Order: sequence, then C-alpha cells, then structure tokens
Amino acid sequence: MDRGTLIGLLLGLGLLALAISMGPNPRIFLYPEAMIVVIGGIIASTLIRFPLSNVRSAFAVASRAFLTHPATPQQTVNELVALSQRARRDGFLGLEDHLPTDSFMKQGIQMVVDGVGRDHISDLLTQEMYSTQERHSLGQEIFRFIATAAPSFGMVGTLIGMVHLFVSLKDPSGIGHGMALSLLSTLYGAVIAYLLALPISGKLDLRSREELQTKRLILEGILGIKDEMNPSQLEEQLNASLAPRYKTRRPGPSRG
Amino acid sequence: MDRGTLIGLLLGLGLLALAISMGPNPRIFLYPEAMIVVIGGIIASTLIRFPLSNVRSAFAVASRAFLTHPATPQQTVNELVALSQRARRDGFLGLEDHLPTDSFMKQGIQMVVDGVGRDHISDLLTQEMYSTQERHSLGQEIFRFIATAAPSFGMVGTLIGMVHLFVSLKDPSGIGHGMALSLLSTLYGAVIAYLLALPISGKLDLRSREELQTKRLILEGILGIKDEMNPSQLEEQLNASLAPRYKTRRPGPSRG
Amino acid sequence: MDRGTLIGLLLGLGLLALAISMGPNPRIFLYPEAMIVVIGGIIASTLIRFPLSNVRSAFAVASRAFLTHPATPQQTVNELVALSQRARRDGFLGLEDHLPTDSFMKQGIQMVVDGVGRDHISDLLTQEMYSTQERHSLGQEIFRFIATAAPSFGMVGTLIGMVHLFVSLKDPSGIGHGMALSLLSTLYGAVIAYLLALPISGKLDLRSREELQTKRLILEGILGIKDEMNPSQLEEQLNASLAPRYKTRRPGPSRG
Amino acid sequence: MDRGTLIGLLLGLGLLALAISMGPNPRIFLYPEAMIVVIGGIIASTLIRFPLSNVRSAFAVASRAFLTHPATPQQTVNELVALSQRARRDGFLGLEDHLPTDSFMKQGIQMVVDGVGRDHISDLLTQEMYSTQERHSLGQEIFRFIATAAPSFGMVGTLIGMVHLFVSLKDPSGIGHGMALSLLSTLYGAVIAYLLALPISGKLDLRSREELQTKRLILEGILGIKDEMNPSQLEEQLNASLAPRYKTRRPGPSRG
Amino acid sequence: MDRGTLIGLLLGLGLLALAISMGPNPRIFLYPEAMIVVIGGIIASTLIRFPLSNVRSAFAVASRAFLTHPATPQQTVNELVALSQRARRDGFLGLEDHLPTDSFMKQGIQMVVDGVGRDHISDLLTQEMYSTQERHSLGQEIFRFIATAAPSFGMVGTLIGMVHLFVSLKDPSGIGHGMALSLLSTLYGAVIAYLLALPISGKLDLRSREELQTKRLILEGILGIKDEMNPSQLEEQLNASLAPRYKTRRPGPSRG
Repeated sequence: MDRGTLIGLLLGLGLLALAISMGPNPRIFLYPEAMIVVIGGIIASTLIRFPLSNVRSAFAVASRAFLTHPATPQQTVNELVALSQRARRDGFLGLEDHLPTDSFMKQGIQMVVDGVGRDHISDLLTQEMYSTQERHSLGQEIFRFIATAAPSFGMVGTLIGMVHLFVSLKDPSGIGHGMALSLLSTLYGAVIAYLLALPISGKLDLRSREELQTKRLILEGILGIKDEMNPSQLEEQLNASLAPRYKTRRPGPSRG
Repeated sequence: MDRGTLIGLLLGLGLLALAISMGPNPRIFLYPEAMIVVIGGIIASTLIRFPLSNVRSAFAVASRAFLTHPATPQQTVNELVALSQRARRDGFLGLEDHLPTDSFMKQGIQMVVDGVGRDHISDLLTQEMYSTQERHSLGQEIFRFIATAAPSFGMVGTLIGMVHLFVSLKDPSGIGHGMALSLLSTLYGAVIAYLLALPISGKLDLRSREELQTKRLILEGILGIKDEMNPSQLEEQLNASLAPRYKTRRPGPSRG
Repeated sequence: MDRGTLIGLLLGLGLLALAISMGPNPRIFLYPEAMIVVIGGIIASTLIRFPLSNVRSAFAVASRAFLTHPATPQQTVNELVALSQRARRDGFLGLEDHLPTDSFMKQGIQMVVDGVGRDHISDLLTQEMYSTQERHSLGQEIFRFIATAAPSFGMVGTLIGMVHLFVSLKDPSGIGHGMALSLLSTLYGAVIAYLLALPISGKLDLRSREELQTKRLILEGILGIKDEMNPSQLEEQLNASLAPRYKTRRPGPSRG
Repeated sequence: MDRGTLIGLLLGLGLLALAISMGPNPRIFLYPEAMIVVIGGIIASTLIRFPLSNVRSAFAVASRAFLTHPATPQQTVNELVALSQRARRDGFLGLEDHLPTDSFMKQGIQMVVDGVGRDHISDLLTQEMYSTQERHSLGQEIFRFIATAAPSFGMVGTLIGMVHLFVSLKDPSGIGHGMALSLLSTLYGAVIAYLLALPISGKLDLRSREELQTKRLILEGILGIKDEMNPSQLEEQLNASLAPRYKTRRPGPSRG
Repeated sequence: MDRGTLIGLLLGLGLLALAISMGPNPRIFLYPEAMIVVIGGIIASTLIRFPLSNVRSAFAVASRAFLTHPATPQQTVNELVALSQRARRDGFLGLEDHLPTDSFMKQGIQMVVDGVGRDHISDLLTQEMYSTQERHSLGQEIFRFIATAAPSFGMVGTLIGMVHLFVSLKDPSGIGHGMALSLLSTLYGAVIAYLLALPISGKLDLRSREELQTKRLILEGILGIKDEMNPSQLEEQLNASLAPRYKTRRPGPSRG
C-alpha cells in the first residue's frame, strides 16, 4: 500500500482513538443510529448522483491506486530500453518470453509480437489510456462528492437526534446524553469528509496524472520498438519527454 | 426507472424513516407549518428566478430522464446498421414499416422516407439536438438552484419557529417541543437539498451528456443511410466516433 | 408585470405571512430596529461598492425588466417582415407613419427614414445594444451584491441585539423576548437575500440574454430593410438565426 | 471625497451607532480587548501575506482613489483636443506654459515639449500605466484579503472570550456580561468585512478600470499631439475609442 | 528572515498572548488533548493527500523562502553585467575565481566556464527553473490544504470534547470548564489556518513569482555572457525585460 496514505490513515485514526479514549466513556462514540444516517445518506445520495457501474469501478480504481506501487519513470524508461535491445537482438518474437508485468506495457508488447499494425497499436493504446483516465477522473469526482455529502448527512443526523432529544425532554438530566449522541453524526460526517474523502480525492488526482505520464511514456516506447529504433536513440527520446529530475542520464559537458 | 436512482432514493428515505422511527415520537417529524415555509419558499423563489415555462419543461425532462432507459451506444449502432441494410435491400420506402421507437431516430428516418433533402435533415436534427440540450441544461440549473434555496428556506423556517418559541416562552417546559419543531425546517431543507436536488442535478448532467452523444451518433447514422453508404462501412465509421469501450467491434491484428 | 415573478413574490410573501400568523404574536415580526440595521446596512454598503448613478440605473432597469412584456422572437420577426413589405410598397418614407412601439426598433426605422448611412445605423444600434447590455449586467451585479450583503447585515443586527440582551440581563424572564428580537435581523437578511435578491439577479440575467438576442434580430432586420432586401428572403434569413423553436416557418420536405 | 462612498460610510456607521444607542448600555460596544484581537489579527496576517511595501502603497492608492475626483472621459477628450489646438498654433514649446494638472497627462506633454522620441513616450507612458494598474490590483487584493481575515479573527476573539468566560464561571450572573463581550469580536469582524473591506475592494476595482481607460485615452491623445494630427481628426479618433455614452459628439445623419 | 513575515508573526502571536493573558486563567489555553486532535489531524490528512517526499520538500522550500533575502532585480542585473565585463576582460576561464553566490547563477556560470554548449546551458537552466517552480507551487498547495484542514479538525476536536462533556455531565458546575476546553480545538484550528497557513500560502505565491522572474533574468544574462555580448548592450536588453520600476537606467530624452 502507498506508504504516506497508510501512515496518514493510521496516524489519523490512532489520534482520534486516543482523543476519544481520554474521555470518561469512550464506548459512546460508537453510535449505530448515527452511523446509519451518515453512512447510509452518503451511499444513497451517491447512488442517485452516479450510475451504479461508475461507483463500483471508482472504488476498484481507488483501491488499486493505493495498493499498487507504480513504477518510477526511470524504471519505465529502463524497461522499455531493455525491451528494445532484446527486440534488436532476438527480433519481435523474442519479446514473447519476457513480457513485462505492467498490463498496459504487456498489452502493447503483445501487439508488437503479434505484428499488429503501428496505427492500430497507437489507436488501441491511446483509447486504453483515455478510458483509464476517464475512470480515474470519475473516481476523484465520486470522492469529492462524498466529501460534500458527508458533512451534510452529519448535519441531518444531528438534526434528527436533536428533534428526538427536545421532544422527549422530560427531565433535564437526560439532555447531556442525548446531546452527546446527536453530535456524533456531525463528528462522523466531519471525519469521513476531512480525514478520508477529501485527501483521497486529492491523492487520486496526483496518482492519475502520474499514471497518465507513465502510459504516455510507454506508448512512445512501444512505438519506438515497433519502429525498430536504435535503443540508445530511444532512451534519449524518452528522456527528452521526461520532467528533468526523472531523466535516466544527464547531458554531460560538451565544448560548444 | 433508472435503477441506481431508485435504489438510492428508497435507501435514503428508508434510512431516514428508520432513524426517525427510533425516536420516542416519530409523528412529530411531519410538521406542516415547517413544510409550508420550506417547500413554499423553494417554489416561490424558483418561480421568481426562472420563467414559468422553463420550470414545467425542466420537471418533464427530469422525470423522463429517470423513467426511461436510454439505449446503449452499441444498441444504437446496431439499430442504425440494421436500418441501413434494410434501406439497401428494400429502398428508403421500405423503412416506413419498421420505424424505430426512439423518437429522434424515428423523426430522422421519416424524413429519409419522405425524401427530405440531406441538408434539411441535418439542420433539423441538429436543431432538435441543441434544443434538447438546452432544456436539459436548464433542468440541471433549476435543480442546482433548488439545492441552494432549500437550506436557505430551512433556515428561514427555523428562524420563524425560534422567534415564535422565544416570544411565547412562558414556562420553560415548552421550550423542548418548540425547539424540536423549529429545527424541523432545517432538517427538511437539508434532506431536500442533499438527498434530492443536488444528486439529481448531477445525474441529469451525466444523462444529458450521454443523450447528446447518442443523438450525435444517430444523426451520423441517418446521414449515412441517406447517403446510401455501405452498411459495414457505416458501422466502422460509427464505431470510430464511439468511446473505445462502446465499440461494437474491435480491430483485429493485421500485419503492418 | 412578469407573471412568474409576480406569482413567486406573492406566494413567497403570503406563505411567510401565513407561517408568521400561526405563532402567538405575529406583530413582533415587525421590528423597526432590526430593519434599520439590515436594510440600512445593505444600502450603505451598496453605496460604498457601486457609484451612485449605477445604483439608480440598475433599479430602473430591473423594474422595467419586470414590468414590461418583451415581444417574442416570432412577433419581432413578423413585425420586421411587415415593415419590410411596407418599405417595398411605399418607400422608406412610408415607414414614418407606422413607427414600431419598441424603442430600439423605432430608433432604427427612424434612421432608415432619415436616410442615415448603413454603417452609421449599424454602429449606433450596436453601441446602443452594448450599453443596454452593460446596464443590465451591472444590475445583476448589484442584486448579487445585495444577496451577499443581506445575510451579513442580518448577522450584524443579531449580534448587536444579542449584546444588548446579554448586557441587560437582569431577570431571565426577559431573555426569550430579547432573543426573539435579535433573531429577526437574521430572518430579514435571509428573506431579502434568498427570496428577493438572488432570484431577481438570476432572472435579470435571463432577461438580459433574451433582450440581447431580440436586439440582434432587430439590427439584422433593420439592415435588411435598409438594403431593400426581398421580404420573404429577409424572413428566411431572420429565421435562420433564431433558435429552432422560435422559427416562424419550418422548412417543408423537398426532394434532395 | 467620492460622494457615494462618503454617504455610504456615514449612513452605515450612523445606523450602527443608532442601533447601538437604542440598547441599555451603548458604552459596552467599545471593548478594547476585542479590538486588539480583531484589528491586530488582521494587521498581523496582512503583514505575513503581503510585502510591507505593497501594503503601504495599497493604502495610499486606496485613499487617493476615494479622495480625488477623476476627470470624465469627455473632459479628458476636451482637454487633449485643446492641447492639440494650442500645439498647432504655438508649437510644442507653447504647451509648456499650460501643462495639464493630471500628472499622467502632464508627464506626457512634458515629454512632447522636451522633444522625447515618439517610441520612448509611448513606452514610458505604457509602463507607467501598467505599474499603476499593478498597484491598483494589489490594493483590491489586500482589501479582499482583509474581508476574509476580519470575520476569521472576529471568531478567534469570540473563542478566546468564551474560553475566558466558561473558565471563570463562578456565578451564572456574570455569564450575560461575559457573553456580550465575547460576541463583540465577531461583530467587529463582520462590520470591518462587510461594511468596509468588501465594498471598498469592489469600488477600487471599478475605479481602477475607469482610470485605465482614461490613461489609454490620454496616451492616444498625447501620441496624436506628438504626430501633429489635425485637432478635429484627433477628437474623432479619441471619440471612436470611447464607450458610446461618453462620446463628445454623435455622428449626424448622412445620406448613404 | 523576511521582515514583514517576522513582524506579522510576532505581532499576531503577541496579541493573542496578550488577549489570553487578560483572562483569569491563561494556562488553560495550552490544552494538549486539543492539540493532538488538531495538529495530528492536519498532519494525517496532509500525509494522505500528498506524497511524503512532496511534503518534506514543501516545508524546505517554504522555510528557505522566508529565511533568505532574494536579490532585487537591479542587483541581479548589476551582477550579471559585472560578470559579462569580467568575461570580456579575462575570458570565460576568468569567471571561475568569482563565481556568484546565487546557486542558480553559479550553476550557469560554471557551465559557461566548463564550455558546455549554449543549448545545453539553456535546457538545463530552463529545466531547473521549472522544477523549482513546481516545488514552489506544490508548497502553496500544501499550505492551502492545511488552511482548509485546520478549521475542520478544530471542529472535530470540539465535537469530541463536547461529546465527552455532555456524556459525563453529572453536576452542571463542570460544564463551564469542559466547554472551555472543547472550544480550544476550534481556536487552535482557526489560528493555524488564518494566522499561519493562509497568509503563508499567499506569500509563497508572491515569492515564487518573484523568483521565477529573477531566474528568467539570470538565464537571459548567462546566455548573453555565453554569446559574448557587449556588456552595455546586455544591460540594455536585461532592463528591457524588467518591470519599469526595476530598471537600472531610465531612457533619457532624445530628439525623435
């Protein structure tokens, strides 16, 4: 799992647990009625807002984004250059025994092996790239929607709780307990929104931009291999389209 | 009805009913005075904000969007290709006995049958497309306005209730009941905004984009039929303008 | 007066009156001190924000927009075509006895009658069009500013009321009445913002876009008349620039 | 001073004073501790946010904008045309005895008198124009920042006051007075933001746009004088770049 | 350290300390439990939102931005012109003994000394420029995120505190103290957001724009030196790309 996300989640939830456990009655913080309203309201409004299929795929994308380690641009360049060298030596068919693990790169190399035309490879990988992109941006949109919905349904739960409380107000001694319970909905909503949904939506955005760049790099590399480009030329070209800090080689001094 | 929307609505309202029924006096949650202020205020401000005719058509569009199942792009392509094959076999007049059910496609095919000129067909369908688009975007705007107005009038209702409450404050025993009632306006406003208006406005947006894409596809298909294009060529062309995952055929490997 | 706006205003104010009258002491809702702070604060901040002359003209534009019925695009096209026919029959001078009521169209026709050059007509009407546009957009801006200022000064009034209340707190029995009064400022601010200023600003925007379209149509028609265009050609051309549902004739089927 | 701003400020502050004086103890509204937190917090955060030099120049620009009456475009055109006529009659050197009062126009005319090259005049005045523009937009930004900071530090002050209050809660009789005092911070923040900073920022924006237009006009006029353009031609050209309502002459009818 | 920032920080924190010390029990304002929730929540959500490496580099960039005094554009121009004169006199190798202190300029001069080709110098410095820019904009983004997260976790802390308080409500005498403590979280969140994170994010933006301009200037100067441009020509060219007020010389009058 992505280290920063994991540390952040553990830290955040741990500190909440610590702060809660300092109180006289930590158990009260688990309040099923409030959870029903807040989590149920978020799910219900998300289902109304987004098509069912999108919600499913968004969560799949999000968990994949956090559970897998994307290759760095350098690793990607190195792998593509190595494939290009092998293709030079053994021909395209020689690539079949060393298919890469990244599914996008594998798909491209397989098409090179199968002798699919250059334009078809380019079209298919571009389409694949954009539909990944589309799924990712939908994922961010869903988490951003949740970040808006969570405090709203927190408020709805608190309002329901307070109406219950005020209506049944016989003896003032019960007001404290009732008020505590009704505030829990707001607390749940705030934690879901600000500790989970909002930061996750932001990180998905970063991840998605990274992945798009990597896929662009792979597409360029696959086409270079298909074109039987010289491996060191290919490396130079791939480097040229990288952000500076990711380059695998830095240009040395040359008398100009 | 659109399944996700239906499930979401039932789930959301069901959970609210459940949470409400857990309290000592669920009946109190139906409070006509608060409904008058919140729902009345929303209607009044919407009438001031939007022309009467727009409001009517927006609700018509919205309910149609949720009650009908739009054809998938694949179904649309298949239907257009079938029509094209029939036109090849039986001539344009042969299409008259098999008019499609989709009203936009039907309108186009009818014009082909009637021998209307290509440019007129294109103009009329394009205009039809844009006026649908316009109605849809107005619909979203109205629901977004409602999502803003609902919490505002919830607050207005609560303020009126609290003034009533404080003014008539003889014995403190009544404060609980009065406070409960005045909070209900805020609750109504929040539920209308966050469970209904906001997610519906978002889904209308998605639907409207889908429908525009389908209508573009139909327009392209109708013109292809009018041009007596080869059915398999037509299919290829329609596929080319589809998002990848909607293609009815994938290009196979070809030695390039 | 614009029907939707009128109905909305009456409905909104009526429902508020109804909700208020349900309480034990409706009279308390008229609280001059709170009105002074809220309405005075709105006026003061608007005067600081906008030049005096703009504020005056904005209210003039707004009341005109709500009190006059704009002609539909069809009526406008029909009127222009009729003028064009008359010009054909009786010459430009024959138009002088049948000047249109719309002041913009009248101004244009008068220039045609006076023999003003085509470019001057076009320049002057375009300038007129844009300065109307500018006045309108300023009007919307002012109402949008009021929609922001009203809740703010509602809060200011409530804060002043609550300080008064807490300071003079001798006997707790007075707290209810004092609290009720201080909440009224917030209520006034909310009603002014959400029932009046915000929806009016939105409708001014719609009106202004409609009026701009009508003025464009008139400009095109006046220039067509000046150019002694064939009336039926003129109608066709004006229709072509209309949104589809406003066309005065629909193109019939033609063998193409 | 700008009349609308002055009236607005006096009206706003007067009404606040009136509303305050209606209470039992108007003196309590001057609460130095709250002022320290709110005004001090605004100053401190503004110093962190903006470079010292910018803050100083922003207030200078703002006070200048409110204390001086800008010339109307007509006056500016008339003055430039008069200068152009004098230059025709007496030569450039004759302008020296009648330098205009506006510092920007004076700077330009002085350069014409000194025989500075056309391009240098144009460059220098354009640079002057843009650095004025930059100072103005910084001024708006600072006032907009203050409008955000003021309610925030109002809240900070109220929170500090409430903590003090709750902590020292011995006898409930003191709660009213303490609460009143702590609410004053919020009141100060709201008045500074909504009566002062927000409207002033908006008016600076309008002023700055006006001034830019005037400076553009002056630049054009100065270059026309430098080019020894015919005065009536110059007037026509300057008019052409004015918004219609500011023109000094309207084109008369001409047979076209 | 940047003077305005330092003064603002000291002023802001000093005034807060003053306001706090006026209360009966200033010590209560240091409440570790609330700090854990607020500061811990900010750190946790920032770690989820941004990659670990970015957070580290953002704080490094921010502290560097506040602790170092950037050279003024004039100083930069003067230094570049001096370097250019020395290069004229002593050749490129003569520059080696007088490498500038600014690391960006030093990097460029070193490459000139080493005889690196013009295009490589330009590429490398441009890349360096953009990666600095990227780090800076990430820094602003992180501080803006903190400004959003701080009040949210302030609210979370207050909610936890209030639930604790209401639950353990035995005797009403403890409510004051408990309430005071729970409000402290909101206070911490507000101070972190409005006194620190928001203004710092804004100033980082200004700083980053300044630094980019300086680096552009240096790049231009280095290339001029590499091209063995005449020093006074170089100064003129560098001045031409400066904002007017930063020019090291103003063009004098010239007969045109």
